[in-house]
Amino acid sequence: MRVGYYQFEPVFGEVFTNLERVAAELEIIDCDLVVLPELAMTGYQFLSPEETWNLAEPIPEGPTTTRCLELAKARSMIMVVGLAERAGTRCYNSAVVVGPSGLIGVYRKVHLFAEETLFFTSGDTGFPVWNIGEATIGVLICFDWIYPEAARTLALKGADLLCHPANLVLPYCPDAMVTRCLENRVFSITANRVGSEARGGKPRLSFIGQSEIVSPSGTILHRAPSGQSELYFVDIDVKEARQKRITPYNDLFRDRRPSCYFV
Amino acid sequence: MRVGYYQFEPVFGEVFTNLERVAAELEIIDCDLVVLPELAMTGYQFLSPEETWNLAEPIPEGPTTTRCLELAKARSMIMVVGLAERAGTRCYNSAVVVGPSGLIGVYRKVHLFAEETLFFTSGDTGFPVWNIGEATIGVLICFDWIYPEAARTLALKGADLLCHPANLVLPYCPDAMVTRCLENRVFSITANRVGSEARGGKPRLSFIGQSEIVSPSGTILHRAPSGQSELYFVDIDVKEARQKRITPYNDLFRDRRPSCYFV
Repeated sequence: MRVGYYQFEPVFGEVFTNLERVAAELEIIDCDLVVLPELAMTGYQFLSPEETWNLAEPIPEGPTTTRCLELAKARSMIMVVGLAERAGTRCYNSAVVVGPSGLIGVYRKVHLFAEETLFFTSGDTGFPVWNIGEATIGVLICFDWIYPEAARTLALKGADLLCHPANLVLPYCPDAMVTRCLENRVFSITANRVGSEARGGKPRLSFIGQSEIVSPSGTILHRAPSGQSELYFVDIDVKEARQKRITPYNDLFRDRRPSCYFV
Repeated sequence: MRVGYYQFEPVFGEVFTNLERVAAELEIIDCDLVVLPELAMTGYQFLSPEETWNLAEPIPEGPTTTRCLELAKARSMIMVVGLAERAGTRCYNSAVVVGPSGLIGVYRKVHLFAEETLFFTSGDTGFPVWNIGEATIGVLICFDWIYPEAARTLALKGADLLCHPANLVLPYCPDAMVTRCLENRVFSITANRVGSEARGGKPRLSFIGQSEIVSPSGTILHRAPSGQSELYFVDIDVKEARQKRITPYNDLFRDRRPSCYFV
């Protein structure tokens, strides 16, 4: 299975420009699954609930889901794409999973970071997983990484691969994803963005890039540079993630002792 | 609060020799808390349940707890010491917490690794924490590190500092402890051993050293070398671990969403 990410710098608010840039990039690829960053078409630093609302899109009618559905069909691939979702009177920091035959699912970010809490509602989807044929996948969005329960929940539900759209500004996540993969014996793809934003006199946010693909044995299969766009793919054997037996005496999941754990 | 570890190489089966070596080392120190490795006085590679039974000790009557109680009293310090415990008809891979005024508690390793499962019973203490005055502490033993629920349970119960006796042979734990500290905003002290053991024709086990002290912000305050003994202490401000507010909008524990988590 050929999987990867597209790390790039979206232009804030220019949804159609960003969509066409992504479309142009992805037109030349041959892969099974590609992950794009969090809020990939809007940019990150919203200034008000109104601005967020105006840039947010209904799923699947909005331009981002519509265009990604076309791309996924044209290239026969799965796409995991972060976007601002408008649903009823609320906005969510979401990711859509789309494939050649249509919309597969939506994940709404559970653990909102910093000012996101002013503009988005915490997700109400829980942590769903989807069987896409060759693999079962789940989604974390950015700051979800710091909660071990998020990746654990996806892995216990059968996820082989964690798709992780991100807009990371702090340095900790790329190394922590190695721990997430080791402790769950799953693959992960973190798709981060690059560049910076300084909107409305707010402090400049610089995004760290370093998108990353990690194996169930904690090997960093690839880590992107910090400061430039990168489209990158690796071939993975999903079966590796289904082998939770890590010694002749230990099965990582069977050996859990939930009666000892606080939630 | 001055805390640290003693990383050394015990001689297999020579409990009294190892105890006197530790005593000689600790006689010259001034600290509040010191962590010793897993199975610090017996060594690691048992060959049979009988050998384990013969080297295991009742708590607090056995020589290890007795001698450490003397040391803790003489030096006015807390000690966390890994040992093979004999209780009823069972053996546990345990750690005692002893202080100037006596035995504080016992933790029995929950997640046994590899052949430990042949010689020890999985722990029945859960993950207790103890208020030792300046700090609340909890214990993980070695392989417990890979289960995020273990550190999380201790942190949710109020642990400021994870005391982590270990006999690590794989390379993953030192980096993973940074994630454990970040995700819980706690301090950790991993006390690993060095040297190697090849007993009864079994494959040689080489221990990786790299004992480590990590802060709640994921800073490695010190990491020991791989191949030599080291007695090391740092001054920490325990209050850092009680500040779970990581942005003006986020409190790491308040923002957990247990209704979304599988256990």
